[in-house]
Amino acid sequence: MESWSTFGGDLHLDLTGRRARGLGLRAALEDALREAVQDGRLAPGTRLPSSRALGGDLGVARNTVVEAYTQLAAEGWLTSRRGSGTTVAARATPSRPVSCPAEPASGPAIRYDLRPGRPDLSLFPRTAWLAAARRALATAPHDAFGYGNPLGRIELRRALAGYLARVRGVRTDPAHILLCSGYTQGLALLGRALSDRGTGTLAVEAYGLPRHREVARFAGPATEPLPLDEAGARTDLLAGSRAGAVLLTPAHQFPLGAPLPAARRQAAVEWARERDGFVIEDDYDGEFRYDRQPVGSMQGLDPERVVYAGTASKSLAPGLRIAWLALPGALVEPLARLKTLADGQSGVLDQLTLAELITSGTYDRHVRRCRLHYRRRRDRLVAALAERAPDVRVTGIAAGLHAVLQLPDGAPPEAELLARAAAAGLAVGALADCLDDPRQAPRAAPALVIGYGTPPEYAFAGALDALCTLLEPLGRPSR
Amino acid sequence: MESWSTFGGDLHLDLTGRRARGLGLRAALEDALREAVQDGRLAPGTRLPSSRALGGDLGVARNTVVEAYTQLAAEGWLTSRRGSGTTVAARATPSRPVSCPAEPASGPAIRYDLRPGRPDLSLFPRTAWLAAARRALATAPHDAFGYGNPLGRIELRRALAGYLARVRGVRTDPAHILLCSGYTQGLALLGRALSDRGTGTLAVEAYGLPRHREVARFAGPATEPLPLDEAGARTDLLAGSRAGAVLLTPAHQFPLGAPLPAARRQAAVEWARERDGFVIEDDYDGEFRYDRQPVGSMQGLDPERVVYAGTASKSLAPGLRIAWLALPGALVEPLARLKTLADGQSGVLDQLTLAELITSGTYDRHVRRCRLHYRRRRDRLVAALAERAPDVRVTGIAAGLHAVLQLPDGAPPEAELLARAAAAGLAVGALADCLDDPRQAPRAAPALVIGYGTPPEYAFAGALDALCTLLEPLGRPSR
Repeated sequence: MESWSTFGGDLHLDLTGRRARGLGLRAALEDALREAVQDGRLAPGTRLPSSRALGGDLGVARNTVVEAYTQLAAEGWLTSRRGSGTTVAARATPSRPVSCPAEPASGPAIRYDLRPGRPDLSLFPRTAWLAAARRALATAPHDAFGYGNPLGRIELRRALAGYLARVRGVRTDPAHILLCSGYTQGLALLGRALSDRGTGTLAVEAYGLPRHREVARFAGPATEPLPLDEAGARTDLLAGSRAGAVLLTPAHQFPLGAPLPAARRQAAVEWARERDGFVIEDDYDGEFRYDRQPVGSMQGLDPERVVYAGTASKSLAPGLRIAWLALPGALVEPLARLKTLADGQSGVLDQLTLAELITSGTYDRHVRRCRLHYRRRRDRLVAALAERAPDVRVTGIAAGLHAVLQLPDGAPPEAELLARAAAAGLAVGALADCLDDPRQAPRAAPALVIGYGTPPEYAFAGALDALCTLLEPLGRPSR
Repeated sequence: MESWSTFGGDLHLDLTGRRARGLGLRAALEDALREAVQDGRLAPGTRLPSSRALGGDLGVARNTVVEAYTQLAAEGWLTSRRGSGTTVAARATPSRPVSCPAEPASGPAIRYDLRPGRPDLSLFPRTAWLAAARRALATAPHDAFGYGNPLGRIELRRALAGYLARVRGVRTDPAHILLCSGYTQGLALLGRALSDRGTGTLAVEAYGLPRHREVARFAGPATEPLPLDEAGARTDLLAGSRAGAVLLTPAHQFPLGAPLPAARRQAAVEWARERDGFVIEDDYDGEFRYDRQPVGSMQGLDPERVVYAGTASKSLAPGLRIAWLALPGALVEPLARLKTLADGQSGVLDQLTLAELITSGTYDRHVRRCRLHYRRRRDRLVAALAERAPDVRVTGIAAGLHAVLQLPDGAPPEAELLARAAAAGLAVGALADCLDDPRQAPRAAPALVIGYGTPPEYAFAGALDALCTLLEPLGRPSR
C-alpha cells in the first residue's frame, strides 16, 4: 500500500497490489489515479502534485508520472495546462450507476414447478452437445466465424430441411429456412413483415400464450381472438374477421391440447389463399406425440401460405435460443432484411453444433429418449390423479409436455387454487391466464394447466404429490 | 420398389427404402403416400383403393393401410367418408416453394480481401473455446438452460463488469450490462428506446459504417451527420443540432482513425447532461491499441450519460454474435423490456463459455496475441507502402484493424481504383462509401479504407502485394 499525502489527507494508491496482478508500474499508477478520480477521492479541480514531487513520494521515475498524467489527460480525467500544472478535470462528481440487485428478486420460493411451457432442463444432453461442438469446431471453415447469411448457416438449414420433411412432413428447402433467436424473434420478425405488407390484424387463438400475443402486437399488427371449441380453433370463422393472417398451434393447441382437425386445417389454408394472407403454424412441441404417429405439419398443405415455426426450446433447451421458420417464397426477402437489421444473423457456433447433432442421428435419439421420459411422466400424472382426485378431468394429453386439469363443479376459482398452491411451494398455470380477452365468450370451464415436463426428475414425485394434495379435496364431500 | 397400379398408371411407393432407413411398415406407407400427394402424383380428388385392395397389392395387412389412411386424413391429405371411400383431399395442386439458390450468389471472385471491419477469422481460438465450453457445460446449473434474465447470464455480466473496468476504465456493474446479439442488436434496441423516450434525431459521425446508420434509422430516430475534422467528431457542434443523442467511436474513429480528444469527450458528455440525452460509445476495437496504453472509455466520464457498447466481433469472431452494453440506470428497464420482446434473451451457451474464457485469463492472453498479430500486419503494410507507393499517406493506424490510405493528388477517383482492384481480385473499402450525406462539406480527401486484419495469414502477403501493385503507379511520373 503506497500512501500519498501531498494534498489534504492521505490518498492510498495501491500500486503493489496492482503490480502483483501483472500491471506494469506506469499502468498501475494510471489505474490507481483513475480509480481515485472515479470514486471521488480526487475531487474535480484538485491540483495534483508535480510529476517530480509525486515520483519522489512514490519512488518512481518522474517520467513514469508524466506519462501517466498524459494518458489520464487524454482520457479526460485530468487537465494539463502548461504553467498551471495538472488538475482533476472540472465536471460533476462522478455518478455511480444506480445500484440495483444483480438479479431480479424472484417471487415466493417455488419448491415444485409445474408451470407449463418448460422442458425438463436436466435432460439437456451436455455430453452429446459438447461432442458435436467439438466436431463442428474441428470442421467449420474459417468463413463460418465471419459475418454471414442472415438466414443462418447453410449446414443447419440443410439438416433441418431434411429433418422437418422426414419428421413433420414440412415441404421446404434450405433457401426458405430462417434461423432465429427463439420463436419469439421469429414471431417478432413475422409480425413486422406482416405489418409492412399491410396486415393490420393477426387472428390468434382465443386461448394461448400471453407473451406471444404481446410480442406479435409489439411488432405491428393488432390481435383478434379466434374462438375455440373442443376440437380447436374455429378457422371457419376467419372469413368473417378483419385478420390478414392467423397464428395457430395445429399439432397440439396451446394450452387446450387438441390437434386441429383436417377440415379446419383445410379451411385455414383456403382462407389464406383467398385473403392473400398467411397462416403461422407454431409447432412448438410437434415432436412429442404419444398416442399415435405425429400429426404432420399444416405447412405441407401449402408451403406458400403457411409459415412453419419450429424450435429447439422444448426438444433441447430454451436457453439455446434456436428456432426456425420455413417461409413462403414471398416472405424470404422481407424476413432476411428484417433479420439483418435486427441482429445480422444468429450465433453460428450453436447452429453448427445442432447441425452436427441432427446429421449424426444423435438428435433423433435424444428426442426419442425425451418422448419416453415425458410419456412416463404423463402416465404417472394421470394415474395419480385418477387415484387421488378422480373428479378432476385430465385433457390434452395425447402430446406435449403439459395437461389441462378441468376442475369439478364446486371447485374454488382458479386464482384461489393458485394461491393455495403457492402457499405449499407449488407453481402451476391457470387456464384463465391464457385467455386473450376476458370479455370473450364462450369461455372454457375452470382448469389448471400443468407442465409435467418442467421439474427435474428428482423433484417430480414431490411435485406430483403436492399437486394431488391440492386437488384431493375437490369434488368430494368434505370429511 | 413397390409398385401400385390400381388407378391410372403406376404409382411407385418405395416402402423398402424407407424401411431400410428404419421406418416401421405403417410409417413407411404413410410417408410414401404423403409424398405422392405432396408432389402431385396423387392428384386432388383421386379415389384411393380400398384398404383391403391396397393391402393385397402391397402385401401388407389391411389394418396397416386403414391406420395409414386415418393418419393422413387427420393431417388433411386424404378425405375419408363412410360409404364413399378415401380420396385425395380437394385442394389446389400443392405448390412447391419457389426455387431459389441455397446461398446468395457472391460477387466477382475475391482472392484478396482487405475490406475493413473484419478480423482475421483464422485467429479464432477453437481449442481454447472448446475447452472453455467443456468447463461451462460441466459446471452450469440446469436453470442456465431455461428461459432467463433478458439481460443475459449473470456469469458473463459479472466477468465483463470486471474486465471492462480493468481494461477499458468502464464503470458499471452486472445489473447494468445487457448482453445482445452483436452490436447491431444493441444499436437497434437503443434506437428504439431513444425513440420511445422522444428522441427524434440521433447525431452520427459524418463518416461511419453505413449499416449502423441504417440499423439506427430503422429502429426509430432519424440521423443527422456530425462534422468531423482531423481530430475527430466536432462534438462542440452538438448544441446546435436537433439531436437528442449522439453515436461516437471515441477510441478509434471509424473509419478515419483518430481517438477523440479529451476536450471533445467532455463537451459531448456535458451536452448530454444539459440536453437530457445520451452518448452511445461504440468501442468496436478498443482493445487493439498499438502505440500507447489504450485510451480509456468515455463511459467512465459519466456512466449515467454514456452507453458503452463493446463486442466480441473483433476480438473473437463476428459469427459469435456476442456484444454488450453498459447502460445508464435510466435505460436498463426499457432495454430489458425491448430485449424480451425482441428475442427473450441471447443464447446462453456462448455466454457461459465466454465468461469462462474471461475469468480464466484465456481471453486476455488471446487479445494480447491478436494485438501483436495485427500490429505486425500494420507494420508490414506501412513498410510495404513506404517502399512501393511512398506518395500514399497512411493514417489512423495507432489502433484497430484498418488504415486509411490517402491518395496522392492526381490519383483516379476512389470508385475507379475499386474497380481496378476488383479486376485483380482485390477487395478494399472506399472512404466515400462511409460518408453519411454525399452533399455534406467539408469532405475528407479521397482515400481507401484497408482492413489489414481481414485476410488469413497465408493470404496476407499476396494481398499486400496486390495492394501495392494497385497503388504503385499513383503519384509518380508514368514510366
